[in-house]
Amino acid sequence: MATYGLVEYEDASPAVRAIYDEIRAVRQTDYINNFWKALAHNPATLRRTWEGVKEIMGPGGALDPLVKEMIYIAVSATNGCGYCVASHTAAAKKAGMTPAMFGELMSVVGMANETNRLAVGCQIEIDERFRTSQVP
Amino acid sequence: MATYGLVEYEDASPAVRAIYDEIRAVRQTDYINNFWKALAHNPATLRRTWEGVKEIMGPGGALDPLVKEMIYIAVSATNGCGYCVASHTAAAKKAGMTPAMFGELMSVVGMANETNRLAVGCQIEIDERFRTSQVP
Amino acid sequence: MATYGLVEYEDASPAVRAIYDEIRAVRQTDYINNFWKALAHNPATLRRTWEGVKEIMGPGGALDPLVKEMIYIAVSATNGCGYCVASHTAAAKKAGMTPAMFGELMSVVGMANETNRLAVGCQIEIDERFRTSQVP
Amino acid sequence: MATYGLVEYEDASPAVRAIYDEIRAVRQTDYINNFWKALAHNPATLRRTWEGVKEIMGPGGALDPLVKEMIYIAVSATNGCGYCVASHTAAAKKAGMTPAMFGELMSVVGMANETNRLAVGCQIEIDERFRTSQVP
Amino acid sequence: MATYGLVEYEDASPAVRAIYDEIRAVRQTDYINNFWKALAHNPATLRRTWEGVKEIMGPGGALDPLVKEMIYIAVSATNGCGYCVASHTAAAKKAGMTPAMFGELMSVVGMANETNRLAVGCQIEIDERFRTSQVP
Amino acid sequence: MATYGLVEYEDASPAVRAIYDEIRAVRQTDYINNFWKALAHNPATLRRTWEGVKEIMGPGGALDPLVKEMIYIAVSATNGCGYCVASHTAAAKKAGMTPAMFGELMSVVGMANETNRLAVGCQIEIDERFRTSQVP
Repeated sequence: MATYGLVEYEDASPAVRAIYDEIRAVRQTDYINNFWKALAHNPATLRRTWEGVKEIMGPGGALDPLVKEMIYIAVSATNGCGYCVASHTAAAKKAGMTPAMFGELMSVVGMANETNRLAVGCQIEIDERFRTSQVP
Repeated sequence: MATYGLVEYEDASPAVRAIYDEIRAVRQTDYINNFWKALAHNPATLRRTWEGVKEIMGPGGALDPLVKEMIYIAVSATNGCGYCVASHTAAAKKAGMTPAMFGELMSVVGMANETNRLAVGCQIEIDERFRTSQVP
Repeated sequence: MATYGLVEYEDASPAVRAIYDEIRAVRQTDYINNFWKALAHNPATLRRTWEGVKEIMGPGGALDPLVKEMIYIAVSATNGCGYCVASHTAAAKKAGMTPAMFGELMSVVGMANETNRLAVGCQIEIDERFRTSQVP
Repeated sequence: MATYGLVEYEDASPAVRAIYDEIRAVRQTDYINNFWKALAHNPATLRRTWEGVKEIMGPGGALDPLVKEMIYIAVSATNGCGYCVASHTAAAKKAGMTPAMFGELMSVVGMANETNRLAVGCQIEIDERFRTSQVP
Repeated sequence: MATYGLVEYEDASPAVRAIYDEIRAVRQTDYINNFWKALAHNPATLRRTWEGVKEIMGPGGALDPLVKEMIYIAVSATNGCGYCVASHTAAAKKAGMTPAMFGELMSVVGMANETNRLAVGCQIEIDERFRTSQVP
Repeated sequence: MATYGLVEYEDASPAVRAIYDEIRAVRQTDYINNFWKALAHNPATLRRTWEGVKEIMGPGGALDPLVKEMIYIAVSATNGCGYCVASHTAAAKKAGMTPAMFGELMSVVGMANETNRLAVGCQIEIDERFRTSQVP
């Protein structure tokens, strides 16, 4: 159970309900997942986090929403966060991620984690050209 | 300097030279970056790592090479690996990443890192529906 | 179950029992939590770890014990350690942490995790003034 | 150098300048540190991050601003983010952190990192009482 | 359950079966653990990962297989990966790890995690002699 | 520079000098590395850390000192701690680590980091037999 339990809609303050309503409208589902119900004990964090997620993860940007969900999975797997891996994998599947795409995502995540540690473990210095070719 | 220094082409064994040659051919550049030169002290690791990277990061799969480079950056930033952030940001730019795409990539990476820790810190349990809706 | 099971008081060696007794006395509770019972297979580690925790987390220092418990939660959430989040959240509540304090703690933890990765991902150099203004 | 360089005030768009002005006013200093100048290439991320930091780190909440700066350092050290350790250590000193407080902060950070890994490495299960005593 | 479930032998393609057969032969057991069955949805990743593990973890190298299993546990505990801690602890026990060896392994893992964060948190620069004494 | 600078022998208190003297005696070198000089601002942390390192890393236990140094490097590379990678690689070389041993160490570290994230990213459950075969 979350640290202070989950805030259900019927027990929520008007401010929290308004955010729950918006989550439902934006996501076109009645389901509010545990993450939001656990944050609701701190309405300011709930609001700020939801507004960030809504602004960042939605359509209309330079990156496709499915690409963003896969990046989210990559970070969550790297951080070892089971909750976010589960919730964003569900979201990615809903957004069209195929088993083949997931398989490649995992292979990149695995390889990056491997080489990240090799680079540090072998004390490799950044190539001068990677430092200077910074301008687009 | 890397733990045992960098193996330059002229000092490399035939086996290492063959891999350097292939890196140059696949990447269409004469430049071999420090990562490979540092791994070259252990030819088996050099070969296995290069074959993995070549197989995973190239074109022709379910994910676009640029998407894979951005996933690589996401993992590397999350792991705090300056070397891999620098080298894969250079690769992503070469593959067409625009400043707007990079900006969105960073916003997803930041948000995922934030919510990963909130989920753990608030001891949030995985929603039953995320556990069971596992089949594609 | 822990790797070699849990060492219960009645099965413990005199050296382990002495530490259990001290934990009970210092914490004013009969309860010995799983962490100590799992470490007890290696009495030297049990002793060293307990002495460190006792010395560091107790009252009388420059930081309030509750502040130290919240710092402990912050680290544990960042490392994704469910056990330590749970045990130190219980300890922090006992030491007086209110829901409002926990909410703010989580918001700082979330924000720090976000900006940590942005700083690395954007390859931001440390400002000269942060390097040189080191003296108190 | 940051991925797309640093946006100086004189080169900034009106939207970015407005945020820079607010940072200066809130922090009562003319200095804008590299973090904000690097984020400024993505004004939406700059704005969202600044508003989050301003809302979270300021006075008037349940936690003292200095406590929040120390929590920030704890997370940043745990994530290995040199930039954030340097900038928030400077902020904490400005907010009154003494060498003794910093010494204790580090000892808690060190101990928490140690026990986090022991708990995972020894496969210790969460005590039932930590799971159920969740209500404040 | 794994993201796309587990691929049992009887449902596996010939390519996957061949790898399962090899795992059984090399490990001298009929048991295929969940890790391989979950990867099997992506045969290329299954093959590459198995070939890497087989090449790296086997006997005949400069490091003893048991030492390699303990290094694997050290990394897995540090990353907070419960699955890999469990599976490689089982492997290490099979390879001869005694409780005393495990106890010392954990004490090194704990101490390293502690000092890693102290070094970053205290902003300690690398000693010149550690930088230059790179040649064997 | 470390947060409060480095405490040189001639400026150290008698208590700190005593520890420096012991470090020199145990390590059979006059050199005190930056890590200890930076911790010396907090003598209690200096003492506790040194006593832990001395107790854990020395000879006479169930694990060879060189094996322990390699485990230390594995953890430090996984945590991205450049300082500890550098200092413990120097120590491991002094203790007899050959390039071939280092190469294998890195290959295990890389592989473990890769599979750690695959296990989490693919949401793989721990095999029942790994849970129950806990007794030596």
